[in-house]
Amino acid sequence: MEIEIATIGGYEEVGRQMTAVRAGEDIVIFDMGLNLSKVLIHDDVETESMHSLDLIDMGAIPDDRVMSELEGDVRAIVPTHGHLDHIAAIPKLAHRYDAPIVATPFTIELVKQQIQGESKFDVGNELVKMEAGETMPIGDSGALDLEFVNVAHSIIDAINPVLHTPEGAVVYGLDKRLDHDPVLGDPIDMDRFAEIGREGEGVLCYIEDCTNAGQKGRTPSESVARDHLHDVMTSVADYDGGIVATTFSSHVARVKSLVEFAREMGREPVLLGRSMEQYAGTAERLDFVNFPGDLGMYGHRKSVDRTFKRIMEEGKDQYLPIVTGHQGEPRAMLTRMARGETPYEFDDGDKVIFSASVIPEPTNEGQRYQAETLLRMQGARIFDDIHVSGHLSEEGHYEMLRTLQPQHVIPAHQNMKGFSPYVDLADSQGYELGRDLHVTRNGNTIQLVE
Amino acid sequence: MEIEIATIGGYEEVGRQMTAVRAGEDIVIFDMGLNLSKVLIHDDVETESMHSLDLIDMGAIPDDRVMSELEGDVRAIVPTHGHLDHIAAIPKLAHRYDAPIVATPFTIELVKQQIQGESKFDVGNELVKMEAGETMPIGDSGALDLEFVNVAHSIIDAINPVLHTPEGAVVYGLDKRLDHDPVLGDPIDMDRFAEIGREGEGVLCYIEDCTNAGQKGRTPSESVARDHLHDVMTSVADYDGGIVATTFSSHVARVKSLVEFAREMGREPVLLGRSMEQYAGTAERLDFVNFPGDLGMYGHRKSVDRTFKRIMEEGKDQYLPIVTGHQGEPRAMLTRMARGETPYEFDDGDKVIFSASVIPEPTNEGQRYQAETLLRMQGARIFDDIHVSGHLSEEGHYEMLRTLQPQHVIPAHQNMKGFSPYVDLADSQGYELGRDLHVTRNGNTIQLVE
Amino acid sequence: MEIEIATIGGYEEVGRQMTAVRAGEDIVIFDMGLNLSKVLIHDDVETESMHSLDLIDMGAIPDDRVMSELEGDVRAIVPTHGHLDHIAAIPKLAHRYDAPIVATPFTIELVKQQIQGESKFDVGNELVKMEAGETMPIGDSGALDLEFVNVAHSIIDAINPVLHTPEGAVVYGLDKRLDHDPVLGDPIDMDRFAEIGREGEGVLCYIEDCTNAGQKGRTPSESVARDHLHDVMTSVADYDGGIVATTFSSHVARVKSLVEFAREMGREPVLLGRSMEQYAGTAERLDFVNFPGDLGMYGHRKSVDRTFKRIMEEGKDQYLPIVTGHQGEPRAMLTRMARGETPYEFDDGDKVIFSASVIPEPTNEGQRYQAETLLRMQGARIFDDIHVSGHLSEEGHYEMLRTLQPQHVIPAHQNMKGFSPYVDLADSQGYELGRDLHVTRNGNTIQLVE
Amino acid sequence: MEIEIATIGGYEEVGRQMTAVRAGEDIVIFDMGLNLSKVLIHDDVETESMHSLDLIDMGAIPDDRVMSELEGDVRAIVPTHGHLDHIAAIPKLAHRYDAPIVATPFTIELVKQQIQGESKFDVGNELVKMEAGETMPIGDSGALDLEFVNVAHSIIDAINPVLHTPEGAVVYGLDKRLDHDPVLGDPIDMDRFAEIGREGEGVLCYIEDCTNAGQKGRTPSESVARDHLHDVMTSVADYDGGIVATTFSSHVARVKSLVEFAREMGREPVLLGRSMEQYAGTAERLDFVNFPGDLGMYGHRKSVDRTFKRIMEEGKDQYLPIVTGHQGEPRAMLTRMARGETPYEFDDGDKVIFSASVIPEPTNEGQRYQAETLLRMQGARIFDDIHVSGHLSEEGHYEMLRTLQPQHVIPAHQNMKGFSPYVDLADSQGYELGRDLHVTRNGNTIQLVE
Repeated sequence: MEIEIATIGGYEEVGRQMTAVRAGEDIVIFDMGLNLSKVLIHDDVETESMHSLDLIDMGAIPDDRVMSELEGDVRAIVPTHGHLDHIAAIPKLAHRYDAPIVATPFTIELVKQQIQGESKFDVGNELVKMEAGETMPIGDSGALDLEFVNVAHSIIDAINPVLHTPEGAVVYGLDKRLDHDPVLGDPIDMDRFAEIGREGEGVLCYIEDCTNAGQKGRTPSESVARDHLHDVMTSVADYDGGIVATTFSSHVARVKSLVEFAREMGREPVLLGRSMEQYAGTAERLDFVNFPGDLGMYGHRKSVDRTFKRIMEEGKDQYLPIVTGHQGEPRAMLTRMARGETPYEFDDGDKVIFSASVIPEPTNEGQRYQAETLLRMQGARIFDDIHVSGHLSEEGHYEMLRTLQPQHVIPAHQNMKGFSPYVDLADSQGYELGRDLHVTRNGNTIQLVE
Repeated sequence: MEIEIATIGGYEEVGRQMTAVRAGEDIVIFDMGLNLSKVLIHDDVETESMHSLDLIDMGAIPDDRVMSELEGDVRAIVPTHGHLDHIAAIPKLAHRYDAPIVATPFTIELVKQQIQGESKFDVGNELVKMEAGETMPIGDSGALDLEFVNVAHSIIDAINPVLHTPEGAVVYGLDKRLDHDPVLGDPIDMDRFAEIGREGEGVLCYIEDCTNAGQKGRTPSESVARDHLHDVMTSVADYDGGIVATTFSSHVARVKSLVEFAREMGREPVLLGRSMEQYAGTAERLDFVNFPGDLGMYGHRKSVDRTFKRIMEEGKDQYLPIVTGHQGEPRAMLTRMARGETPYEFDDGDKVIFSASVIPEPTNEGQRYQAETLLRMQGARIFDDIHVSGHLSEEGHYEMLRTLQPQHVIPAHQNMKGFSPYVDLADSQGYELGRDLHVTRNGNTIQLVE
Repeated sequence: MEIEIATIGGYEEVGRQMTAVRAGEDIVIFDMGLNLSKVLIHDDVETESMHSLDLIDMGAIPDDRVMSELEGDVRAIVPTHGHLDHIAAIPKLAHRYDAPIVATPFTIELVKQQIQGESKFDVGNELVKMEAGETMPIGDSGALDLEFVNVAHSIIDAINPVLHTPEGAVVYGLDKRLDHDPVLGDPIDMDRFAEIGREGEGVLCYIEDCTNAGQKGRTPSESVARDHLHDVMTSVADYDGGIVATTFSSHVARVKSLVEFAREMGREPVLLGRSMEQYAGTAERLDFVNFPGDLGMYGHRKSVDRTFKRIMEEGKDQYLPIVTGHQGEPRAMLTRMARGETPYEFDDGDKVIFSASVIPEPTNEGQRYQAETLLRMQGARIFDDIHVSGHLSEEGHYEMLRTLQPQHVIPAHQNMKGFSPYVDLADSQGYELGRDLHVTRNGNTIQLVE
Repeated sequence: MEIEIATIGGYEEVGRQMTAVRAGEDIVIFDMGLNLSKVLIHDDVETESMHSLDLIDMGAIPDDRVMSELEGDVRAIVPTHGHLDHIAAIPKLAHRYDAPIVATPFTIELVKQQIQGESKFDVGNELVKMEAGETMPIGDSGALDLEFVNVAHSIIDAINPVLHTPEGAVVYGLDKRLDHDPVLGDPIDMDRFAEIGREGEGVLCYIEDCTNAGQKGRTPSESVARDHLHDVMTSVADYDGGIVATTFSSHVARVKSLVEFAREMGREPVLLGRSMEQYAGTAERLDFVNFPGDLGMYGHRKSVDRTFKRIMEEGKDQYLPIVTGHQGEPRAMLTRMARGETPYEFDDGDKVIFSASVIPEPTNEGQRYQAETLLRMQGARIFDDIHVSGHLSEEGHYEMLRTLQPQHVIPAHQNMKGFSPYVDLADSQGYELGRDLHVTRNGNTIQLVE
């Protein structure tokens, strides 16, 4: 059976991920993501009402025109988890394919919200939920199966999809951490990966997320970030003024830790900011997390301001606002607080906890620096970088190669510079560029079996 | 009562710490340390047989000639903990003073070993043990008391000494972390610091270690390092080849964690390297730590090589050598292993765990890089930077100032660049350079009360 | 005679410089500058119509309230050169003092323009021109003289003022480069500095600009930057598309080089952007530079756009626009061009020459990165960092200390971290902190002679 | 005609360059270099007496075993210039091939010296001189010609060899700077490159040195470095103590500038150190440079020490020693001087001029830091980084691609990380990875024409 991989997006950047695998007549698409930085560099762009081609020209969404070169039918569109660089192009591109969107329950829910926010296109693809550990047939040949293997990432319900073919498994390995104690959800299913590596024809191809391939050692478990966060929050537990925390709103496990530690300190946690409300609310509604029954979550400006007023009246020492804005994004909640645009007022000695790392890009670093400067000008004390990455480091990649023993490897989710440490690693494990190690770019196809 | 501070060493560098406090007629000396880098930059220097003045000229030990300007009698020499930059000049300088050396039991033991290694001078000062939490009178006036407040650092039995005077307390705050869960020993005694800040005349002067004053946030607890280390070791637990770990040999709490996790993995821990044997052996003999009864510790080359041979014969997967050499020091054990100078042989995939950070100095970084390169050439996989600092970060300094409310502050344990973030912090808390915030250099005296 | 120095602004930052020297009953003020970054961190601040106290509270202009502690009469306000961090607080503060503003002709002209732009205060101080090399008496005692010593900086007509007193000279050494071949204007007058160091009582006090004290070696001459720029422009001389250059608009020597090299390449130089027109126009009007008679300079948006249209019509290869925006400032000309907001259109291969370094501050780095990204998205090729600093490096500072042999030294024009390498240098030359080396902060006074 | 490229060495590192081009039955080898760092990481290795295979295993010389896969006869071994990473494996490998070594006169001379130093192998290949601009036939087919195009690099007499084939030219582009004013020798021959790009079949393949591909802008001309150096030396011209300079001994143009500026300052230049004597002596003997008739050059320790004694007796202000040791190499002259191992003694204020950049590798940075620290401890003032690179930056690469318009591009002289910015550039110019842009590793072959 012919096997071909189209590397459509996310092979020259982090963002706008999209990869298609053709096995015989059947095609599965993995991810349809957005590159947000390509949107933000322009002023006043409203993606909701933009046409796909314009977004493609901006480099914001995958250029899926290469799909016309693949001879076969798309059987499924499979986002691996709910981050925007994996799902946010679905409203712009999915309607072109007569195929269901297959994902885990939490991811499906976030896809549904994306589709509802779309105003240009009418996206009618069927939404199909499949849990980690489950398998479904693909196409009518009876020869193909799609399996979801559980992984850990900085969002819940993340999986690595595997397309089982007669030529071996194609493992789409994007966005995971080798975490045996992920605080929320199950550990990464290394046993299943090991089985896939051994069974049948083994692994034909492994597509890997190179984000942190140049980081030495191992990405720590979320439980280490939780311990670190606990240590910080314990150390300020007796402070009787304002304490504010910020983290990735989609990082429900971290939000859960913040909520729990707030309670432990005797403070009322409250989630503020549109995306904070969105992700936490969705996770709770789908029973992924059990927040205390009365946990406040507010996204609209009015209710947020009302909450801040209540906090100022009842005492900042009674509350722990958990807000958006960990990167100093100009319109996020913490930045608005820092600019004095909300009723919340900082006093000398108040604590601001960044349970996040700064994404190392100059625009970002500039914005974060401005937010911190404004906070410090008001007397705030900063605790930052209380975080672990959601991506494998060098030794995680080594472990995956050793476990899967793939015939072919395709680095993804980076630019050339980001690929290079992964290529060095794969080379040291016996792979050879151009033979079984395929460094590629957006818009290419790689024929693995002819 | 006149109070004067002589800032003798460690005010232009990290290393060769020495400070004298004169209260009326009585003087207490805090620390007598060595700056090892000033020794190592020269080839083939043997400090054991060198004269004090030559070592002073090299910048290796404190230039204590300023002591002649202090009118009073030295009543005690008080090393705060057992690191070389705090005790290793005692063999060269202590005999000049007719005063006992007063320290905690573990520190006294290490001082004793230093004195025994000295071949040039005959150091006969009385060695007096005092526990954290205890107090002793100083001099005959009845007005002065020396107290040891328990702190946490990267060596056990560390204290901050406090000289109580009628004018207020002089708190010598070098080398601590604000750790509420230090794995070995008691948490830092913040309650006692708070009392000292409030009682009597309060704190007249606080001398503070600025090592990490420029690091944002809070230095994590040793328990976070332990969790991180546990996460790493768990992740390689099923590896059936060689695993080697290295850390600061004086960091007994970390060595203890390594020993325990080795056992948990089903491996026999064994401590290798002269200083590894020295510190761990001393800690166990003094009952600071309970290693398993049969824990091997070997320092002499012959017994080390014999151990390595046994490991190679019985199987590398049975053992976890815990060795010296975390900075790539040319003569340390791990470097010798990397160079193939020991019977231990690395295989592809063997793991080397650096439970230490690289000390950020170019000589050091070069040596560490060489050691890692040699290890990688033999196929070793590197896990590094599994560590927390022993020194306060910005928010720890903020907390100490808030707790002690000192009248005067003297930054120490750094050069001018290192002092600068601390000066910024103290300034933001209302201190003023030249008035109550004293930036100084080696060899100065500061008269606080006339 | 009593000599006292008030370090009013610019001792905790770069920006809002202001220092007062009292000699007996007479006071001279050096510089009254603005810290622009403290303005820009707030949105929509219009300084022109703001009150001094609000600007002081923002940290934007010097807090001159310490002046009330100086007993004497202000005899002169002396800005050293025309950069905003040295003159732009004059409209807000000068009217409080009954004293003339004394400066070199070019600086006086820029001060006049500042005053004309002010809408809140009525600034009626007399404007007095004095050339480099000249001297004027200060006050009525007959004991004080003010001298201007010629220096080189990144703006023309810069001087170091010297207040000659019976106790020795007070040399205000801010903002210079030790340049023997400055392209425009005379070399730094080291002979005069040497004389001042030797004559009479020598130098009582030297106040020094520490901006680059931590840079090793020597800041190159402007002639080296010119050679570098010539090399770059020669290398693209045969390119037949668009070439655009940007630099500091106040850096008239650099603008002159750009203009000359444009001509040499057969292109018509044209200066675009408000401040480009302002500085170049002023310099030409005052005969500091002789631009070609027909050199176009346009500041208003309409005339700029008209010029761009003409360039697009006649051919981009006929012109070399020299524009504002070297730091990626959001509203500057180059940024507007990059965003496609002007009629100028970039083609693949067009060259953009940044004859400037990025000011190393995260906000700035973020903005510059965005501007470059937008330029690259349009196909532009970037040549950057073709520049030399206007400030002394380590060896320039060493040379000044050796030449002046001052009794007292006061580091300025930086924060504590910036002072620290200068303190190390001065210490190595025999100065001692707190004795004759005075590290200070905004708002302090230092009594040198009582 | 079949055209095949074997990328033998220098495709995973800088060092041990070797590439073979097969055109039909005829093969030309470009470069046979050494990776010195792979030698130095081991203690006490004497390469002169080592066998090729051991050096191959160490990664020190190219693994030329892939040559057996090329079906054809080696017709010439062509080192492009005299740096060790291009010629120093010739003594170990050239004797295996029955072919002459063809190079420019200066390079041939250095190859000869390498061969004379070899003690293990007997290298009898004919040494053939060919000047830049000349051409020779290759093989008997009459279809192949080898041409040398003049380029500028940090050593004199450097060329880019071009193999003209019926399928187009193969341009081996290693090690050059786009320099129109190189101080010594002719400018880079861009006109000829442009002709080669246009004539016949154009350029079939361009093999490019990626060393600085990630550096923005353009590498300045050697004349800019010369101006910078002149500026520094002028600024210390009136110093009446010791001045010492160091640079790359093979960089004859720089040595020439140093010699001339020493004379201009009224000092006697003298070259010290083995390699300083070797390169300068060779260049003078071959008439590439005209040093003053009595310029002293000393390599042997005895004559060096005698010279230093004379300098100390006659006065350090009479001389300018130009010495080896710009990277702080432990056994080089400057390091020995810094350690006090020579009769030269530094006084406070003496100047040390590093006309070189630090090679950015941790081992190196550590050694250089040690050397500078030792110099500073003796009072020396440091002027460093007075240098321009010998390699193209981003815009030079852009210019070469535009000029040659090659059908195929092969990045070389770097590891994967170093290739990545070049790949980005080539991609932006329309090349496509795997199609006409060939990222490869040591030991591969690429078939361009079948």
